[in-house]
Amino acid sequence: MDFDFCFPIRVRSGQGVVRKNADAIAQLGQRCLIVTGGSGAAKSGALADVCAVLDDLGVIYDVFDRIGQNPLLSVCHEAGTLARKMQADFLFGIGGGSALDGAKAAAIYAANPAFSPRDIYTKQRKPALPLLLIGTTAGTGSEVGRVSVLTDDETGRKKSVSGDDLYPVFTLADPTYTHSMPRFVTISTALDALSHAMEGYCSPKCTDIPALFAEKAVALLWDGLLWLASNDTLPDSAMREQLYYGSLYAGITLAACGTAFPHPLGYVLTENYGILHGMACAAFLPEFLSRAEQFTPQKAARLLTCMQTDAASFNQVLDKLTDLGDIRMTPDEIDAYCDRWTTAVPNNFKASPGGFTKEDAKTMFEKWI
Amino acid sequence: MDFDFCFPIRVRSGQGVVRKNADAIAQLGQRCLIVTGGSGAAKSGALADVCAVLDDLGVIYDVFDRIGQNPLLSVCHEAGTLARKMQADFLFGIGGGSALDGAKAAAIYAANPAFSPRDIYTKQRKPALPLLLIGTTAGTGSEVGRVSVLTDDETGRKKSVSGDDLYPVFTLADPTYTHSMPRFVTISTALDALSHAMEGYCSPKCTDIPALFAEKAVALLWDGLLWLASNDTLPDSAMREQLYYGSLYAGITLAACGTAFPHPLGYVLTENYGILHGMACAAFLPEFLSRAEQFTPQKAARLLTCMQTDAASFNQVLDKLTDLGDIRMTPDEIDAYCDRWTTAVPNNFKASPGGFTKEDAKTMFEKWI
Repeated sequence: MDFDFCFPIRVRSGQGVVRKNADAIAQLGQRCLIVTGGSGAAKSGALADVCAVLDDLGVIYDVFDRIGQNPLLSVCHEAGTLARKMQADFLFGIGGGSALDGAKAAAIYAANPAFSPRDIYTKQRKPALPLLLIGTTAGTGSEVGRVSVLTDDETGRKKSVSGDDLYPVFTLADPTYTHSMPRFVTISTALDALSHAMEGYCSPKCTDIPALFAEKAVALLWDGLLWLASNDTLPDSAMREQLYYGSLYAGITLAACGTAFPHPLGYVLTENYGILHGMACAAFLPEFLSRAEQFTPQKAARLLTCMQTDAASFNQVLDKLTDLGDIRMTPDEIDAYCDRWTTAVPNNFKASPGGFTKEDAKTMFEKWI
Repeated sequence: MDFDFCFPIRVRSGQGVVRKNADAIAQLGQRCLIVTGGSGAAKSGALADVCAVLDDLGVIYDVFDRIGQNPLLSVCHEAGTLARKMQADFLFGIGGGSALDGAKAAAIYAANPAFSPRDIYTKQRKPALPLLLIGTTAGTGSEVGRVSVLTDDETGRKKSVSGDDLYPVFTLADPTYTHSMPRFVTISTALDALSHAMEGYCSPKCTDIPALFAEKAVALLWDGLLWLASNDTLPDSAMREQLYYGSLYAGITLAACGTAFPHPLGYVLTENYGILHGMACAAFLPEFLSRAEQFTPQKAARLLTCMQTDAASFNQVLDKLTDLGDIRMTPDEIDAYCDRWTTAVPNNFKASPGGFTKEDAKTMFEKWI
């Protein structure tokens, strides 16, 4: 199959990888803003490691630790303004998907001081400041990608910004930083990564190279999710590593192929019902698999083979892992949710097996009436 | 397994890809030197396509078509001097491994006018001029790599030069350009690609990502080689595509992991007995597989599984495809060949399963006494 794969895969991985790359970090400049979401970066040990290396190198740095879950444009703008004021040469994003996406947005604002928060979506920009990224969850894939998903302060809606300037110079991948994730975050982030791999794999954009990564990703991730479904404890170090590398490979697929309908539909559950992002997307994976079986049967079969499972067991395990609480929607609410899909997410809908419409979304939400 | 994969995979593939990328080509500048090995670039149709696009764009270009098999330093130096004189902004390499490696060397000489031919091995350099590459054989992998293998005019020995500046801006991969390869070139180049994938896969440097590509490569290539072993005709378009993409994936493994002992030992057969490069390397693959089975049994087993074959059938098919003619060596000649390995190829020997010594090489050559 023909392909167009122009993708800088730049991952340095392994235990102690931050310290081992001190020389490479030094080359990025003398002033750095660290952007984090707060507790994750600190608890994981990544923040302390980064600060120690920057101290050793004599790099002047400051820490912006207020990127929240589903990062707001205004907060990222603040981080970018701080980076600008301190004349940062580069930004160091540390954390889960929100922190990394926030760091990317801050790197754009820092390079474009005239931008208002919303200009990030509309105006031509100067390339973002150089980024180093460290993931502390095993899900987002943001650390190998060119996308940042941000939330509008007023509408509360998620929308992404992307560009080659958002690829990190490299990502420093140390699976030990994921050890501090609580169990529910471990599950939700693994489900997010699984969604990336499955949605990307079944997209018409998925050519041979991202398919290779997706197949490897679902095998690693599903094995980990099965373990999580049958154990109440936390994964050991080897399983953490497996989940983390699975999430990176899924991230490579995501960067090449994008997502399909589970992601934008999941945003509704996150924005309006507070469901964690990974669980919100995974809530639609059974329906996604079913459509894949109908419209791209070979790909669906191959996914199940790679996961060594079948559709019934797949749905059963997802059901056990996904906690949606008690969602209730009114027909009016559903209409309002679906309105955004008249124009907003044509790519995700086109990338779905068999296509996808506003009406399809409506039908899927109606089970919560 | 931890990994360090910082690799710009930049491939645009498919029929008509040169014309489709006219805009991207235009961005590289107004003056271009095309570097080819002569007949291959013309017969394949690639040269005509490139010239037509450059004409349309109004790019001023010249063609240097004298890169021979196993390109000589002096000839690449000439090409570089021509590029310099015409003030080329970029070079367009078209052809098999020799032409592409020659284009890389010319791009170095063009950027470093004070270099004598041999300085390419010893002196610090300014980055090579930007390169676009088009492969017309399905073997070399040079079009996705950072290495150029060159031959010293006086000693006749092959030696490589490498660097990130030798990655192409992108490679334009159109499998139809491989259709004009005669059968013996098709076989030899496929064997070369198979060697890249197998040698790279079994190297201690091979981490998860290059392994993914190697597994895919050997599956595609072995299937093609089996077909070639059981048919006397030329492959059809689909099989050509399979061999070509197999060679690209093998090239990605090669770029990440390098080669082991079959490559330097094969150089002796090429330099002194005129054996085609791919066949010369493949002559040592049965011994390579045997050592892999002994020292990295899991990897050897996985390779055979991916190829859906066993060692005995593997050796039988290779024997059928590899034509070494009537090689005869004297003990003195063997000593002379082995002398170069006291210092010259430590990386290749270290990368071999179980390690490899000058004495091992000697033993392998002694079958030709």
